[in-house]
Parts: sequence; structure tokens; C-alpha cells
Amino acid sequence: MHEIRKELEANKDSILQANGEDMTHAEAEAAAGRLAPSLVKRLDLRTGDKWDAMLQGVSDIAALPDPTGAVSYARELHDGLELYRVSCPIGVLLVIFEARPEVVVNVAALALKSGNAAILKGGKESARTAAALSRAIQAALARTALPSAFVQAVETRAEVAALLAQDRHIDLVIPRGSNALVRAVQHATRIPVMGHADGLCAIYLDADADRETALRVVLDAKVDYPAACNAVETLLVHENLLGTIWPDVARTLLAADVRLLCDGPTLSALETTTANFATHVSPATPDAYTTEHLSLTLAVRTVPSLSAAIAHINAHGSHHTDCIVTESPVAGRAFVRGVDSAGVFVNASTRFADGFRYGFGAEVGISTGRIHARGPVGLEGLVTYKYVLRSQGTDGHVVGEFGSGQGKRQYTHQPIRATELPF
Amino acid sequence: MHEIRKELEANKDSILQANGEDMTHAEAEAAAGRLAPSLVKRLDLRTGDKWDAMLQGVSDIAALPDPTGAVSYARELHDGLELYRVSCPIGVLLVIFEARPEVVVNVAALALKSGNAAILKGGKESARTAAALSRAIQAALARTALPSAFVQAVETRAEVAALLAQDRHIDLVIPRGSNALVRAVQHATRIPVMGHADGLCAIYLDADADRETALRVVLDAKVDYPAACNAVETLLVHENLLGTIWPDVARTLLAADVRLLCDGPTLSALETTTANFATHVSPATPDAYTTEHLSLTLAVRTVPSLSAAIAHINAHGSHHTDCIVTESPVAGRAFVRGVDSAGVFVNASTRFADGFRYGFGAEVGISTGRIHARGPVGLEGLVTYKYVLRSQGTDGHVVGEFGSGQGKRQYTHQPIRATELPF
Repeated sequence: MHEIRKELEANKDSILQANGEDMTHAEAEAAAGRLAPSLVKRLDLRTGDKWDAMLQGVSDIAALPDPTGAVSYARELHDGLELYRVSCPIGVLLVIFEARPEVVVNVAALALKSGNAAILKGGKESARTAAALSRAIQAALARTALPSAFVQAVETRAEVAALLAQDRHIDLVIPRGSNALVRAVQHATRIPVMGHADGLCAIYLDADADRETALRVVLDAKVDYPAACNAVETLLVHENLLGTIWPDVARTLLAADVRLLCDGPTLSALETTTANFATHVSPATPDAYTTEHLSLTLAVRTVPSLSAAIAHINAHGSHHTDCIVTESPVAGRAFVRGVDSAGVFVNASTRFADGFRYGFGAEVGISTGRIHARGPVGLEGLVTYKYVLRSQGTDGHVVGEFGSGQGKRQYTHQPIRATELPF
Repeated sequence: MHEIRKELEANKDSILQANGEDMTHAEAEAAAGRLAPSLVKRLDLRTGDKWDAMLQGVSDIAALPDPTGAVSYARELHDGLELYRVSCPIGVLLVIFEARPEVVVNVAALALKSGNAAILKGGKESARTAAALSRAIQAALARTALPSAFVQAVETRAEVAALLAQDRHIDLVIPRGSNALVRAVQHATRIPVMGHADGLCAIYLDADADRETALRVVLDAKVDYPAACNAVETLLVHENLLGTIWPDVARTLLAADVRLLCDGPTLSALETTTANFATHVSPATPDAYTTEHLSLTLAVRTVPSLSAAIAHINAHGSHHTDCIVTESPVAGRAFVRGVDSAGVFVNASTRFADGFRYGFGAEVGISTGRIHARGPVGLEGLVTYKYVLRSQGTDGHVVGEFGSGQGKRQYTHQPIRATELPF
């Protein structure tokens, strides 16, 4: 990985020149209305600290502990017969991404660290940058013992469908981009897909909510980065707060330019003289509570109880991350156990749902699936395991000698203390 | 679960009567050639210790530790901000099974123990028995706080396709039966499927194999229970053994009524006067090495080296369980690391690949997938996890206060010792 960083640094000029060409094309496409301006911004590797952050990411991942070779279960099955469950790479990853060309470098580092081969397929808007980054990575790999095809980028559009059909050779697909991309991939393949399709996060202001906590947590969750999947989209307000905390929360949000889509009770609880009321408050339509706005828009609904809040979240949310604001330990307990989401928070902003913030060092993505990996996924999400069984000191172990009859051997199932394979 | 066992005992007569009716029908179908005789045998709950074993299974699963509520990662992110990853049920399981009606009871116990709801769909050959078992389970659940629909059996054929389309409501499909069933389910749904499609296990006799170990391990792996997915189907013989150990291994297998499909070198290494040679030895066709025989048939191939053996297994096997017979620690190490299978064994029969033998107490199934669960799957395979984040002692934690600028808070990421949620 040190080689990759060196090679990227050596080729900085040509890579950023390729990025400049991609940008020129993308800006023309955006001006013609054929590409979202937000995609153009994501494409840019030349401004701010994006280049340095990308390189730092490689060093950070290199410094993480090896996720493979770790023993998570070890038992003596009988004298001289030892079982170890040891983590190992999954195999071949297919990463499909939009815009952000730094995904190439990030994924290459994650794949190498976890021992997986990776195939990378980017959108055509970042094709030149991705190709330049990929060439640098291949040149770096060529100086190591690894095959240079270990991480490879493919470039034409037609290849995606063909790749998604390779369920015998590709073990996991990781789409990184819009909901539309993730859903399209999920529908097009029988290979397992790890990705989040939606971030429809809710905050519930409980009857026992603290005013200051409510103000701070709701504001941060909505305005810190509204386009993120862990930003709050739905606010549930206990009916007891309609005349107390709710108007203060609304005033704070309106002052921060947030648009509120309110149900009847939360709407009529607001004074029409509140700043921005006329322009920023409107009645909620039914689909307001199932829409991922990704902007300064928040759907608000009154609930009569904690259990109604939990029921709303489980029925309408996306099982990503949901929060309760409460001073009641009983309510916190019930929320944490009752809400079926990857993240269940008490008095903390939904924006904390993130691999770096959780302490994983590097983030593969955030999964709203329940199988294999859920929530923010670190390197652990890129490994599986195998069972290693070793017989020693006899003429091999055979199953036929075990059983309940006379003279039969019995399984001992004694725990073995091991963090890695002892041989 | 105690209630389930009681209710089953109370209804033993009517359940076994239903089983008798299923058996009568199945025997007629088998006589008419419309049902495999092996299916009829699996259907029978009345002979041997099957009934008692089924009830004992319920008690055994009840006695296992609760797989939910276990904390597998805990960190302080900042003063008063604590993160816990805690195991929880996956949600709704759909179990599709053939013949064996005891799957209803087994799955009900596993689902209840892990907190998952379960929908059970059996084949029509076991419909009466499954319905009687299901009624007893529902009656038992009705006496508990759980909804009686928590475990429910569905009976008509038409419902399978409709169930497999419910990817918003069903979280995991577990097919239990033939390869054909597993493959059909995998092709018909976008819900994650946990099941093994093939057990194409190999044993490699290394140049440094011990004669006695080779004889014992190969014989057990082939004849202990040839119809099992963990029985050996392919034997790879190092060319150095053609004139030494191989003829002894062949003689032992032939004496046990095993048919050998041999490549050129292993065939010509045998004396034509060996007992059963004329009737039980024949040349291998290319598909012999990719066929799951599930009978007393073994495909045999010569390999020039350990690395050729590993390459053969990775290319032709099903990544289930593979074994090396060797006295060389170096060869054992290389095999264990090089073979990409759920089980990699040294000098031990492939038949050890089993949840009970591994010490899991109860087995959900054996997975040849790499995602979520691999190899024999215990109760751990029926849970996922959620991240619980709790803020205490301040007015809530917000992301906007963290960062690299002046006056910003830093993440501490200090490990917390916890085996369960502290609140």
C-alpha cells in the first residue's frame, strides 16, 4: 500500500490533468442539463483537501490491524482434534460507483488490506480520472508479489450487466452512489449486494424530552449535512410537547432555513407570526413520511405515545438510524429494544452513524441489509471465515468412532484460547 | 419451549396418526414410481428414536444460551457517549423443506430461541404431519405472551412463489432439502438465501500421507453416511503414492462395496486381481469430478503436487469441506490456507463438518455461501445486530461539535468492557 501511495504521488500531475478533462466534460453536460451539478462537485479531485485526504486514507487503511487470520471460535472436539474458525477474504468484490473517482483508491486499499480481489466499475463521467488512478495502482502492484489484476477497473457501460451475471466468480457487489444505482444493482443480480438503498432516519421527541437536548440534536441531525443518508428526515413529536418544546424546536429549525411539512396538530401548534412560517411551513402529504428529502426539508408528525412512535418508525423508516430524545431511562430502553434499525440512538444526533465515528478506521459503506453486515461497515464486512480442523497424534480422526454406543468416543467441546491459528 | 414439548407429547397419538396417513400416501406414490423411496423413509416419524429425538431437540435448544442481546463491540466515542453493537433477531424467516416433518419442530424451536418469526412451507408429501405438528405448536404459543402466528405453517403449493416475492417482509429464506430445491429457491427470490447447494468434498492424499491415517479417513468419509453432503466424493492421490498407499486404499474401499471412477494412472496402478475390481472399478469421465454422487461411488484422480491438488479443489469443488492427509506440517499449513472452502481439515474425516460435532448444540443448516454464515450454522446464523448509541450527562451529543478545528471535540474510541447492554 505504501507503493500505491508513492505511485499516486509520482503521477499526481497526470491524474489531476485527467480529472480536469473529466470536469470540463461534466460541466458542459451539467450546463446542458444532462448531469446533476452535485455530481460535478463530487467529481472534483483538485480543490480543497480531497487529494491529500485520498492519500491519507491509503495510509490510514494500511495502519489498521489485518482483518484476516483472526480466530473467533476454537474448540477441542476430542483429544488431538482441534477446531478453529478463522477469518479470511470473501474472494472477488465488484464495486460499482458513481462520480467520486477517489472510490478507486479507497476500494483498492480496502481490498488489499482484506485480501480480496476487486473489480471497479465507475460511471462514464469519471472515466478519465478513474483510468489514471487505476493505472497508477496497477503500476504499484506490479512492483509487489500480487498479480496486477488483483485490483482492476473496467470502463465500458456494457460490461456491468455481464459482470452482474457472474455469480460463480464474483462473491459480493458493493454499489456506492445514489439510491437509484443501489436499487438497479439489487434488481439485476443474484450475487449478494452490500449497500444501503435509503436513509430515512427519524427522531422521536418523547414526553420526557429535555428542551435543550431536543433543540441541539434535531438541529444537528437536520442541518449538519442534509444530503447525507444519516440526516434526519422525519420528526415525531409526542402530543404532550405540542404546546411546550415543539414550538421552540420549530422556531430553531425555521431560523436555520429548514422547511417543515407538518401534520394537523404540529401545524396548528405553531404561531403564524413565527419567522419564516409563511414560506417554510406547509401541510404534510402522506408521502412526506416515506420520502428521503436529502435537503433542508423535515416531515413532522404527532404521536400519542412511545409505542406509536416505534410503530411509525418500524413501518415507515428504512431501518437505517433512529433516535429518541428523552430523560427517561425506561423510555430509552424501550426505544432501543423496540426499534428495528441498524442504529438506535438515545439523545445523540443520527449523524453519528458513520464508520469513522464508530471507530472502524475505514468505512466500506453503510448497510441497511440485515444479513452479513448491518449499519456502518468496516473492514470486518469484507471478510468471511473458514473452519480449520486439525487431527494430531493418532492415525487421523474418524466420525464412525464417535457416538452413544459402548466403546464410542465422546465429543469434549472444550474451549481453546486462541486469537490466531497456532500452526 | 417447554410448552411446545408438553403440547407435542399430549398430541403424540394424533400426530403419529397423521404421519401414518402421509406414509400410506407416500408409499403408494413410491410404488407408482412418482416419489423417491429415500423421501418415504425421511418422512417416517414413527420408527426408531425419531420422535424422542425430535422432543429432545426442543429441550436441547431451550437449554442453549440466548443468542440475542450479546455485545460484540463497545466503544466510548466521547465523554458520556457510548456505542454498543448488540445481537438481535433477523426478523422473519421463511423455511422451505422437503419430506422430514420434524423440521417444523426443529425450526420452531430455533426461531423462538433466536426471537425470529418463522413461516414454514413443507412439501405435500408431509402435509398432514406438518399440519398436526404446527397445530400443536400454535396451541402451545397461545398459552404464552407470543402471538400464535409467530411460527406458522403454510400448506398450498401456490403460496411458495408469492412468499418468495415478499422481499420487504421476509428477511431470510432457508431451504432444507435436495440440491434441486435449494437451487430453485435461489433462482426464484431476491431475499437472501442461506443453504448449501452442493457438497462436493475432496480428500487429498499428500506425498507425506500416513498409510493408516489415509485408510481410516478415506473409508470413514466415504462409507459412514454416503448420502450426506459432507461425505467425500473426490479422492486426489499424489503420484508418489501410486505404487505404495493408493493400492491399499483402493482395496479397502472396494472391500466396503465402494465403486471407483479412476483416471489413467490410478486405474493402471491397481492389480486386476483385486477383489471387486471387475465390477467396481471403471475409468472416470470428465464429469465424475463435478458430480455429487451421494452414494458408494468415489472419483479418483492423480495429481503431481500439493498445489495441483489445491487448484483442483478450488476449481471443481463446492467449497464445502476438504481434507488433506499428511504428516507434513508445511503441507498442512499450505492446504489450510490455500483451499477456499468452509471447512479445511488435516487428517480428519470430512464427516466432522456438522454443527453438533462443532459444538453449536443446534444446527440451522450448512452454508456454502460466504456472506453472513459459512459452513455449519448454529443459532448465531439466525441473528444480526444493531448499534446502540447512548448520550448521557449533557444536553445530547451532536456531530457539529466534533472535528479538527479549534475548540472542536475529538473522538476518544476507548474500548468498553461489556457483554450485554448496561441499561
